[in-house]
Order: sequence, then C-alpha cells, then structure tokens
Amino acid sequence: MSSSKAFKPKILSDALSLKEIVRTILPYLSQVEERLSAVSDEGEGILKESSHYVLSGGGKRLRAALVLYAASLKPCDMSKAVEVAAAVELIHSATLVHDDIIDHAVLRRLMPTVNVQFGSEVAVLLGDFLYAKAFEMIAAVGNSQVTELMALTTRRMCEGEIDQLKHRFRADLALEEYLSFIERKTAALISACGESGAVLAGLSAQEQKAFSVYGLSMGISFQIVDDLLDLIGMEKKIGKTLHTDLSNGKLTLPLILLRTVLVGEEKNKFIESLKSPNPDWQGVVNLADRHSIREKTEVFANDYLTGALAAVQIFPQDVQNTLEAISKFVLKRDY
Amino acid sequence: MSSSKAFKPKILSDALSLKEIVRTILPYLSQVEERLSAVSDEGEGILKESSHYVLSGGGKRLRAALVLYAASLKPCDMSKAVEVAAAVELIHSATLVHDDIIDHAVLRRLMPTVNVQFGSEVAVLLGDFLYAKAFEMIAAVGNSQVTELMALTTRRMCEGEIDQLKHRFRADLALEEYLSFIERKTAALISACGESGAVLAGLSAQEQKAFSVYGLSMGISFQIVDDLLDLIGMEKKIGKTLHTDLSNGKLTLPLILLRTVLVGEEKNKFIESLKSPNPDWQGVVNLADRHSIREKTEVFANDYLTGALAAVQIFPQDVQNTLEAISKFVLKRDY
Repeated sequence: MSSSKAFKPKILSDALSLKEIVRTILPYLSQVEERLSAVSDEGEGILKESSHYVLSGGGKRLRAALVLYAASLKPCDMSKAVEVAAAVELIHSATLVHDDIIDHAVLRRLMPTVNVQFGSEVAVLLGDFLYAKAFEMIAAVGNSQVTELMALTTRRMCEGEIDQLKHRFRADLALEEYLSFIERKTAALISACGESGAVLAGLSAQEQKAFSVYGLSMGISFQIVDDLLDLIGMEKKIGKTLHTDLSNGKLTLPLILLRTVLVGEEKNKFIESLKSPNPDWQGVVNLADRHSIREKTEVFANDYLTGALAAVQIFPQDVQNTLEAISKFVLKRDY
Repeated sequence: MSSSKAFKPKILSDALSLKEIVRTILPYLSQVEERLSAVSDEGEGILKESSHYVLSGGGKRLRAALVLYAASLKPCDMSKAVEVAAAVELIHSATLVHDDIIDHAVLRRLMPTVNVQFGSEVAVLLGDFLYAKAFEMIAAVGNSQVTELMALTTRRMCEGEIDQLKHRFRADLALEEYLSFIERKTAALISACGESGAVLAGLSAQEQKAFSVYGLSMGISFQIVDDLLDLIGMEKKIGKTLHTDLSNGKLTLPLILLRTVLVGEEKNKFIESLKSPNPDWQGVVNLADRHSIREKTEVFANDYLTGALAAVQIFPQDVQNTLEAISKFVLKRDY
C-alpha cells in the first residue's frame, strides 16, 4: 500500500502539466508570481522573511489558475483577475500556515513549516497578515460580488476547520459529516476561484454557477485524494508531514471506509487507534492495504470528478477539455 | 506604585460613562450587541460556544461607538453603520484572541482566555473566523472606501504586531520604534472606526481626516495607558493577565522611560530584567515607583490626548465636547 506506484485511475491517465494546459493564461500566472513576490517585499524583517518563505515555496497555483482561466473566457480587465488570483493564493497560504500550527505539522513542500522555522507566534500573525493583505487586494479591485464571495468563503473555511477540530477522535464520524468538513475547508475556496473569475469576466449567472459547482466537486475530489495520501503516501514524495490526520484524530474518508469493512478483533484494534493520539499508523496502513481502501477511496474521488465535469457541459468543448485537464492535473498525485 | 488610587490627570477629572456620553446612539449600540449575539448563534458546537464566550464578555465597545457616533453626525442609513460597528468589534476581538495566544496570557476580562478555555487550536481558528465574518459583513455593506480602509487597517495591525514580536527582548528599543508599533497595532483601528463612520455619513474629506487623526492620537494615548497598567496595575482591577509585556520582552513606554533615567548598578539590573523571560517584575515596579515613571508616562498620554482633541476643532462645540468625553472615558482606567 505504501508502494510508490503512481495514482492512475482511468480518468486521470493522460494528465498534462498545468503550464501545458493553461498556455493562454501563462503570462498572467507570471504576473501573479510577481504580485506575490511584491507582497513579501512590502514587509520588513521577519514579516518579509517569513512571507517570502511561504509565498516563494511554489505550490501548484491551481487556485490562481482557475480565477485567471475563468476570467479569460471573455474580454475583461485581466489586471483585476491577476489581483484576485494573487489574493486567493494568499488566502490559501494563510490557511496552510494556520493549519500547520493546529496539526503540529513540521514539513510542508519539503521544507520545515512556518511554526517550526519561525515559531508558532510568527505563524499566527503571518497567517493573519496574509488574510488581511488578501482582503485589501480584493477590496481594491472593487467588485463587491467578488469581495463578498471571498469573505463568505473564508468564513466558511474557518467554520469547516473548527467543525473538524471539534469532531476529532470521534471514531463514529459519519461520511456526511466528513464531506461537510472538506466541502467547506477545501472545496469552497476552489469553487470561489472559478466563480470569481467568471464574475470578473461578466459571464452569465449560469456560467458562474457552473464554475462554482465544478470547483466544489473537484475540490472535494482533491481533498479525498489528499486525505488518502496522508494515510498511504510517502513523505519524501508528498513533501509534507504525513499521518497527521490519524495522530490528530481526524477521521477521513479512507479511515471511514476502513471502519465500515472491518469486523471483530481487527475492528476493535482499529477503533482504539482512532481514539489514540499515538496511533499505530503502520498497523492501520497494513489494514487499509488488506482491505483495498485505496481503490475504494479512489472510486469516491472519481465520482466527484465526474460530477465536476458534468457541471461544465454548458461550455464549448475546448473549455470543457481544459477544465478536464486541470482536474486531471490536480488529481495526478504521486504516492 | 501598585496602589489603587485612580488615574486622574487633570484632563480626565470629569469622565462620564460611555452610555451618558453617547445617549443619541444608544439604540444603535444595542443593535450592535444584537448583531454580535446573532453572529455567535450562527455557528454550531465549539464555534458557537467560543464565539459567544468572546463576544458576550463585554468590553467597552469604544470602536463601535466611534463608528456610530461619526455616522450619526449627518442623516444616513444607520443600519450600515451598525453593521460596520459590529464588524470592527469582531476584528478587535479577533486580535485579542490571537494576541492572547502569542502573549501566553491566561486572563482576559476576568475570565480565562480562549487559549486557556478552549485550547490554542480553537483560538487560532476562532480568530480567523471572527476576521472573516467581519469582512463578510463589511463587504455586504457595499461601501468600497470603508472595505478598503478596514482591510488596510487590519493588515497594518498584523504588521505592527509582527514588528513588535520581532523586536522582543531588545533592551535598546527606541521610543520611535515603540510608537510605530502601537500606532499600527492599536491606534490604526480606532482611527479607522471614526473615519468609517464619517465616510458612511458622507462627511467631507476634511471631516473624515479629522476623525482619522483624532482616533490615531487617542489610540496611541490609550495604548500608552494600557502599557502603563500592564506594568503597575492590579490584575483583579484590570481583569487580564498583567506583566505580559515584561515577561514577553516587549519594551513599552514606561520601560523605555525608566531605562533613560536609570544609571549604574540599577540600570544594569534593569537591562538584565528586560532580556530575561523570567524578569523580576516586582523589582522593576519598585524602580518605576522610585523614579515617578507613572507620572512621566501620563505626560505622554495626555499630550496625545491633547493632539486628538486639537484635530477635531473643525467640528461644532457639542461634537467636540462629545469626542472629548469619549476620550476621557477611554482613558479613565482604575489601576
């Protein structure tokens, strides 16, 4: 199970790189990098150092790409889209910085987390700064629909995180509860990205909605795969601290699926692991392997992906193809 | 020095209660309380519990009062002012929740801090939620000048906090550096409150600016007194953990003033205290007492207060009187 064979469900077999997919918006993606770099440079001392540490660390820039791609579908002021795209990357970074404090994570993108590198005090304030800077940039764009959407989305992300935190170490967590957590903490922002771009481009309400649904389903699919990786991935490939879900008592889809198939002594031992802050994660990984949890989890991920693509059938074929390629890129993860 | 005699410099000798001062906006202040209560009720579980814990804990509601009073000076849609006023109280609460994590404070408004009561994980996320909810409410009001001002202010507050954090345990901190910290971390929001209210009421640019300067000077004065209280106040009167500045290595005005008057062995011992995470605070308090640091600090506080009142001389006498009464109320603190 913890082998290195790549994740290749049928639907994802021909994934391209993001740069190949979104060639038309590449110049704008570069502008986003420049904006992020400028944001770091505005600060001084430890703020500059820590924000640079976080913002130059790469990342897929999936969220920025979604804003830009949606905005590019109709002639509009792309400088506004660049600003919103950079801002959503700031929001995303802020959530990562704060989540790593909460999860006691030590590794992110193959580097020490901010809480490890600069201390958790700096991590709390850096996250706050990134959020605030993001809203400053979004507000300056001056589109009230986008500003409201982003503020509402950020609020829902926090609610999802808090809800999940509250339900830690609950071995009986229901599938619906898990889905409600990840919809808010991960999928809502991905959904808001495409929708914001669509709003900036002046696409129809139906088209805005299509981007919203696409992002929501794709975001859920993405988080399911992320949670699978946390269980069965290899740290040096994923580049971040793994098994944080288990040790932080977060019941994710693979763990819920495992719970439903186990019986007797195996089930008892597993339930005990779920409630323990020091779980026998290797034992759990072995159990998951024995019961084909990877494959079962991937079925869910693919279902949500199919839902995402169904939502964008109102668009011309070339747009659909691009959105399909983006989702394949997002889900093509090496275990 | 740690006696219980009330702080009564000349200028503050006849302070009224906030309710007596702002009788005309009392109905709107009640509406703010209702909004804050509704925000708590929107959440579930630990979010509802913790936000209720923070938002129902009282507080002066100075920031809300400034928004409402400025907005009330000219007929306008006061429901928008109520929304912004509630939002700034959310922003203020968010900063307190996060600051208490950073300062390892255990007491706030005579109750355990959120980090003690609910754990620092909840405290991180609750602060994020309060910020996000605030921006959602401000964005919904739909005044882009106010939205931009509030986002910019929040970003500057974070910068001020980070800057102060970075300069901890620096015994040679300059007065100007200290003023730059507190201007951003405290005074900027108080300044933005009156200015926002003035914007919502459609007051002139000059009048908006007057509120901005008034709030900034008054906010600096307020923070100076707060920092004095942290040194020489009594916990059961102030209601929050004291001596956090010393033990967190934050050089505040009274400590800077003390540093400038000490010589020889006294100075050496003091400098040692400033660099220690376990300072002899009683020794420092005694030194401050011996060198009349309270009186010296109050001179600064009063100077900024005078500056605040000078800035609002463009308004009719009754408005000036009210703004003077508000500042007196704010600074009337029992040691």
